[in-house]
Order: sequence, then C-alpha cells, then structure tokens
Amino acid sequence: MFIRNAWYLAAWSDELGAAPLARRICNQPVVLYRDRQQGAVALEDRCCHRSAPLHLGRIVDAGLQCGYHGLVFDHTGRCVEIPAQVLIPDRARIRSYPVVEKDQLVWIWMGEADRADATKIIDYPYHDDRANWPHRHTVMHIKASYLLSLDNLLDMTHAAYVHGNTVGGGDPMSFIQAKEELTSRPDGLKLTRWLLDVDPPPTYVKAVGFKGRVDRWAEFNFVAPGSVLHWAGAVNVGQGAYENGNREGGFSIRTLNVLTPETEHSCFYFWSVAHGYRQDDPEATAQVFKAVAETFLEDKVMVEAQQLRLAEFGEAGLIGVANDRTRIQMRRTVDNLLAAEAQTTGT
Amino acid sequence: MFIRNAWYLAAWSDELGAAPLARRICNQPVVLYRDRQQGAVALEDRCCHRSAPLHLGRIVDAGLQCGYHGLVFDHTGRCVEIPAQVLIPDRARIRSYPVVEKDQLVWIWMGEADRADATKIIDYPYHDDRANWPHRHTVMHIKASYLLSLDNLLDMTHAAYVHGNTVGGGDPMSFIQAKEELTSRPDGLKLTRWLLDVDPPPTYVKAVGFKGRVDRWAEFNFVAPGSVLHWAGAVNVGQGAYENGNREGGFSIRTLNVLTPETEHSCFYFWSVAHGYRQDDPEATAQVFKAVAETFLEDKVMVEAQQLRLAEFGEAGLIGVANDRTRIQMRRTVDNLLAAEAQTTGT
Amino acid sequence: MFIRNAWYLAAWSDELGAAPLARRICNQPVVLYRDRQQGAVALEDRCCHRSAPLHLGRIVDAGLQCGYHGLVFDHTGRCVEIPAQVLIPDRARIRSYPVVEKDQLVWIWMGEADRADATKIIDYPYHDDRANWPHRHTVMHIKASYLLSLDNLLDMTHAAYVHGNTVGGGDPMSFIQAKEELTSRPDGLKLTRWLLDVDPPPTYVKAVGFKGRVDRWAEFNFVAPGSVLHWAGAVNVGQGAYENGNREGGFSIRTLNVLTPETEHSCFYFWSVAHGYRQDDPEATAQVFKAVAETFLEDKVMVEAQQLRLAEFGEAGLIGVANDRTRIQMRRTVDNLLAAEAQTTGT
Repeated sequence: MFIRNAWYLAAWSDELGAAPLARRICNQPVVLYRDRQQGAVALEDRCCHRSAPLHLGRIVDAGLQCGYHGLVFDHTGRCVEIPAQVLIPDRARIRSYPVVEKDQLVWIWMGEADRADATKIIDYPYHDDRANWPHRHTVMHIKASYLLSLDNLLDMTHAAYVHGNTVGGGDPMSFIQAKEELTSRPDGLKLTRWLLDVDPPPTYVKAVGFKGRVDRWAEFNFVAPGSVLHWAGAVNVGQGAYENGNREGGFSIRTLNVLTPETEHSCFYFWSVAHGYRQDDPEATAQVFKAVAETFLEDKVMVEAQQLRLAEFGEAGLIGVANDRTRIQMRRTVDNLLAAEAQTTGT
Repeated sequence: MFIRNAWYLAAWSDELGAAPLARRICNQPVVLYRDRQQGAVALEDRCCHRSAPLHLGRIVDAGLQCGYHGLVFDHTGRCVEIPAQVLIPDRARIRSYPVVEKDQLVWIWMGEADRADATKIIDYPYHDDRANWPHRHTVMHIKASYLLSLDNLLDMTHAAYVHGNTVGGGDPMSFIQAKEELTSRPDGLKLTRWLLDVDPPPTYVKAVGFKGRVDRWAEFNFVAPGSVLHWAGAVNVGQGAYENGNREGGFSIRTLNVLTPETEHSCFYFWSVAHGYRQDDPEATAQVFKAVAETFLEDKVMVEAQQLRLAEFGEAGLIGVANDRTRIQMRRTVDNLLAAEAQTTGT
Repeated sequence: MFIRNAWYLAAWSDELGAAPLARRICNQPVVLYRDRQQGAVALEDRCCHRSAPLHLGRIVDAGLQCGYHGLVFDHTGRCVEIPAQVLIPDRARIRSYPVVEKDQLVWIWMGEADRADATKIIDYPYHDDRANWPHRHTVMHIKASYLLSLDNLLDMTHAAYVHGNTVGGGDPMSFIQAKEELTSRPDGLKLTRWLLDVDPPPTYVKAVGFKGRVDRWAEFNFVAPGSVLHWAGAVNVGQGAYENGNREGGFSIRTLNVLTPETEHSCFYFWSVAHGYRQDDPEATAQVFKAVAETFLEDKVMVEAQQLRLAEFGEAGLIGVANDRTRIQMRRTVDNLLAAEAQTTGT
C-alpha cells in the first residue's frame, strides 16, 4: 500500500534523453520522456491497442509513438494518430501523470490529478548552485521496501556497525551518545545531531585535512513520502559551531536521498552528494561521491537481507530499542498520511 | 488452453541425432528421438519407475533406455526391459505420441491418437528442392504466447515501426496502403498484399541489385494451429507482376513460420527461409538468413514485452484498429477450433 | 515435512572460521559460528530487533553481534547487549539450537532441545585417523529433496547407467546380480553387496594397478535421517575376501555421505572420501576425490531432473521394481520415524 496523493521522484532530469525511459513507480508501469512541446511527461507504459510497452517506441513531434503499430499519444495520454485510420475512437487514450521538473529532478504525482500541487515539492537549490555546491548524482535499485531504506537513513546507530570502515569510523559510542533534537511536522520530521569533540572519520580527514578533533553535526529533514535532505559537516573543536552557529570552513556535505517505491518489496534510491569545500576541485567531487557510494552499497546489502527475512517471517516477535525513536516517528508520519488518505477515499 | 487434436511442429529433422531431445509442447514434457526401427518417435519425457526424464537416457536397439535405472521403452511407450527382472508389469508404460516426419519437419499429434490424420499436415516441398529453393532453418525460443507471435506475423503495419531499419524500410505509408485480399477457410486464412511502384527495401536491393522502383507482393497462408507459409518478392515496375502474374526474376523468398506452444506464455518459433534467386550462391543463403533473423529478433523483443503487460493487465481496456482484421480473423479461427473441440469432448 | 527430533549435519568443522556461516536447515534460517567461549554454536539467523540476518554480523567476545545495530547474542540466544541502552528486555532473545562438534563434523538438533542426545550421533573416527585413512571433504548443493539423494545412494542399479564411464564401468549385469544382504534397524539399515570375479572399474585400476579380475564389496550403512556410511573395495580374485573375510591390500575407500534438507526441494550433500591404500601419497587422495566428485555430479544432474518431474506430476502412476527394495526400506524407516514423532506431538 502506497500513499497515492504524493509527489514521487521519478527520474533525474538528465535521464530523459533521446529515448523514452521505463520505470515502475508504486507498482505502476510508467514511461517518462521529454515531450517536444511540453517537456517532461509521464504516461502509462502500455499502448491501448495491443498492450505493447511504450518505452520501446520513439519520441515524435506530436508526442510518443508506439514502437509496435505506430499509434501516437500526446502528453495528456490521448491517442492523436492511428496509422491508416482516419477516425480515432475517444476511448483511445492512456493514463497521463502530472509531472514537475525542477532542481534537476523529475517528480511524478501518482494520485488524483486535480490534487497535484507543485508548491508541495521540496526545494533543493543546491543542484543548480554549482559554484558553492558542486555535486554528482545517481540512482540505485534496492530490492527492499522503500520504508526499510528510510529506516536506515533515519537511524544513526547503524553507522558504527554497517559503516565501521567508512563514515562510521571512530568510537561507536560517540555515534550513539550524540546530542539530538527531533521535531515533527504532519508531513515529516527534522533530526539534528551533534557529536562534540570527536575524532573525524577517515573520509573527512581525506577531504579537508583535519589535524585534530572536531565538532560534527548532521541534520536529517524527512519529507514524506520518500525524501531525506541531509546536511553533515565538521569544523575544528573550539570554533564554536554548536554554541554560536559558526559552521564556516571545515568539512560540509549535503546529500539528497529520495526513495521511490517500485513495488512493495523494491525501490529506487535517488541520491546526490554536494560538497561545500574545495569547490574548484573536481577531484573533491569524485572523492566524496565514491565514499558515499561505498557507504550506500553497504546499506543496500543490509536492507536487502533484512527484506528477505521480513518477507518470510513478518514483524512478529521483534522488539524495539531506544534508538528507534526517529524511524518510528517517520513510520508514524507515513501511517498517518495513509490513514488520512483512506478516510478521504472512504468519504 | 490449446487445441489438442492438431499437428504441432516438434522439431527439425536434423535435431534428432545421437541423443534424445527434450521439448515441452502444449505444456507436456516430451522426449523425441530417432528410433532404430521406427524413425522419429515422441514419448512422455518421464520414466514410469522413478520419474527420471528420459531425455537423459540413450537410444538402444529396442527403443529408449532410461539413464537412471536402465528401463527400456519401445516406440509405443511400452516398457520392454527392466534390468534384473523377468516380469514386466502391464502398467509399465508411458504415453506415446503419433509422429510424422516429412519435408525435414517432425510433427507431433497432441490429442487422441486415433484421430491423427497425416494428410492434414501442410506440404512444404521447398525444403527438399534445394536446386530451386536453397534454404536455411532454425528454431527460436519466445517468452510469449504463440498467439502473440501469430498476431505479429499476420499484422503488416508493424513492419514500418518494428522493422524500420530492415525489411520495413522505405515509406511507412506504402505498407499501410497495400492492396489486400483476405480469404478464409475453417482451418485458416490466406492474405495477399501488393505494394505497387514502391522503393525496394535495402535487403532486397542488396540481394539482387534493384536499380529502380518495384512491384512487391507478400502472401501469408495461415494454417491452424501454428503455421504461416509466407511468400514475398518483388520485380521491376512495368513487368506486370500484379496485372498478369509475371513474377519471374527479381527477388523472391519463401519463409516457413511455425509456432508451437511450449507453455501458455512461451513458444518455439521454427522458421526457414528459402530464396528463389542466385540459387548457386551460398552467400545469398547466408545473407537472407541473417537479414530475416535480425528481423525476427526485433519481433521477439516486442512480443515478449507485450506478453509481460498482458500477463499483468489482461486485455481489458484495449481497442481494436482497422488493420487488426487479419489477426482477428486468425484468432477467430483458433477460437472456433477450440470451441468445436470443447463440444466434441463434452458429448 | 521433516523429522524434527534428529541430528542433522550442519557444517564441516573447517567451515566455521572468522565469519559466521548462514545455512538454511529444514527450512529454518540458521547462523553457525565458533563462539569464543562455547565453540560451535547455532542460532536463528534473524535479529530480534529489526530482522537483519545475523550472518552479516561478527563474532565478539560475548557472542555474535548483529551487523546492523550492534545487538549481541550469547550462545543461548539471549541478547546480552543493546548499544546505548541499559535495560535489556527479557524477550530480547532468539532461538538457539543444540550443537555437537566431533569427527570434523558440526551436528545440529532441530527439535526439542531437552531431547537432544549426543550419544545418538554417528561415530566416524576415520576423519581423525589420517595415518590410515587420509581424506578430503566438501559440500554440494542439490536442488532436490534429500530423500531423492538418499534413494540414489541406496540404489545400486543406477551405477551401471548413471556412472557407466566412472565407477559403474564394466558389465552392467555384474552390478545387478550382486550378492546382497540387507538388515534393518529402527533407525536405519545396512546393505552389504559382493561382486565376485568381476573386472575392476577404471578408477580402481588407476588407483592401485589391478592386473586381473577382482572380488568387490560395498557396504552401505544408512542412519536416519540423512547419513550413509559407505565402505567399498576390491581385492584380487582368489584372496578369499568374501569367503574368509580377508580384505587386506587392494583397493578400499570409505565415503561418508550426509544429506541435510535445506528446503522440501533442496538439500546439502556433505561428503568425504578416505582411502585405505597409498596413504602416504597425496596424489592418491586427489585422484579418489576427483573421481568421486565426478560421480556425484552425475548423480546431481539426475536427481535434480527427477525432482522437477516429481514436483510437477507427483508420484501417481509410478511403478516399483525389484531392485527398489533397499530404498523402499529406507523410506519406510523415515516414514516410521515421522509417524512416531507425529504421535508424540499429538499426545
């Protein structure tokens, strides 16, 4: 079961090129393409004639042409051409999904079209601010529910165990004993964590050359259904980052994480990492991307293994621990939105 | 659901060699082998002792020997030898299927044995007429219902879209605006199409060196349940091919297409292509085979993708178009035969 | 359905190294590891916190630590550490299985822990008697019920057909016409076979250089649920091996075969082969291991193919043959144990 009336990240802007793109979202087969008149468009990936997937077709002036028998659909999903046939029946149409492209991201609305409100989409100006925040992005396929990946993102204790050799380096207890602040909203939550006077992890040292201990922060802003905006960084101890807010210099990265359900048991993990240091050095971009990618591959192994067990045994008999509170708050947010939607549909 | 009382193509003659051949037909596991006394034989691929597949056995003088414990079955499916045992119980037998081998083809009858009438098998003398029709053949596995491949074969409009770079080259409209004649029989149909005064496709030009425009024909003779005998060719405009039947010279190929269901959602696509030009040139055989193989791989991609969508969503909401009439007539033929068979069985 | 109150072979001793080992046994996911205090330990392979498989974790002083959030379980399955949490709820525990390690083998008890009786485990001293019985061992994965592999081991007639080119060489009838003695016990059976005055198979000749015909024996001691202790050998005709028990010299191998169910349709086949000749020659060990491995791969092909047919068609319509008696006796033993267990559980 998915939240229907919500914006899901469907693709990176640069994934929409010369050929249509097939992507299953919330268990619906969708074809995305860049319409010559309308820009990014999302249609049902199934021709209404003989069910051929439209992603095997091609982009033409009037819209998207089926690769089997040449029917053409415009950006609204209406069939506007049937080869060698003058009359086009009115029911020759497929579903079209509202789409908004901004900040290098292509968002899709999977619910009722008249409720799609583009102002609800998160802002992420860093993607277009290459002077201050050079970045690199990708998308990973995860064979696990998007909720397990969200659990993973909003749960800090795993870093010391899953990422012991990468960003989780140093004393495990330092991670667990962070100063935390958690605030909730109807559509999400924000968690801020500080690790004061700790050893910087190897990747931080490699990036900016820390010589001593640091104050380290991490902010996680979850926006339902699937976004986690992450800002992490560290500056030298003594600069007053925690006490008076001076986070200048040092190490700082912004990671956008967006999980989009493919099926109940698989998802797409879109992420970008932008660095707020050595902005003129392409090597810095490459280094941070590589480090984060390694980390996320460690997470992927774990959540996919976890998914297999949950699919077989369910959640019966599981216990909660104190450090679950953020992910439990996230789950509650999602459940509330699902419940509200069920009620609306029921009316 | 398959037509049971029908001849299905089980194998090419040259597939029956030193070892038995396993092939699932109409969802029944069959083992084919060349019996030393009886020639081509088809048995249930399952020993009646411990269920070992007989295709792992070997051909012996008395028939086919199970590779597990050495039981031997003759061409009627009767067990004629149990190692170290004198008495052979009467129920030690497996199903045997009527088989006819002709024209390099091995046909199997999947229904009631006493209704198998070899005169109903199509004639295809070209396979043995190598002087006039040199040919090459193969079998492809398709992960789609045999009916989707038949749809594909009997539907001309797809050539311009699926095969735009191969035999479908030239003006798409020329394909759609062909002169067509369609005649029906209880066991099939015949479609004849003419494209007059058109540019020859690249493969035709490569084969015989056309310099100008051509008159082009294609005949499709569908014989239920799975055969489509195809004759296509082209001669220079002005020779009178359409008006007075002079199809001498120029380009001419005969393609035998036989679809045999493996399961409800997969099939075997047996095909041969024979060329009626440059008969002494092995390179011509190689060229035409390669060109047709490329075309059929394009079809395979499309019908397999179509099968996935149909398996998920069924046919609900689909529309028909004018150019569906031949494939719809084919489907009607198959449905009529299934209905007739259901009635006979019901009596 | 599996016999629950029984010892199953879970692993070779040398499989328990630095990292935990995941193995599904009787359809339960188990993690095996060598506890720093307790030696070999088997736990449910599923953390009671968020269901992460524990085989992704690591061995620590207190037991096994989950690789996701760091919970630690001791050898009884009790959680003894939750990071950053003082109180550990009593229900924070997972299932622990009785384990016994001996003769290089790690045995697991899948039933009620208080009924686990280590004296019921087979003795196999040859593994630790390297002076007289040098050996090599491995484990194969078989995509078939463990019962089909047991059938295979206790059925001699197949050797002439499945292994015609290896140990089954020579006259097929010699295999079938062996002198056999079969004795039964509640927990198993023992079959002894003699082939007198026969040609030695190629592998025997290669091993010890037989020049003429031999007397050949094979003993199979089946112990439910999954062990077959095999002793086979041959000496020159005339030495009196059969008549007066002189089996000195010649060729002699001991093969331990243990089948452990993974699922209803798959199993692990643990086996070792020890040779009682040329004990100082590592090449002899390598040769006999290679020969047996080739033989068992032939069996694997057959039982996996058989499994597919049985899964599709069941056992309906199958017939028995005279040479089935040993395997039928084995099946009866297993059925009796299952029935006894069902009765106990029912009480």
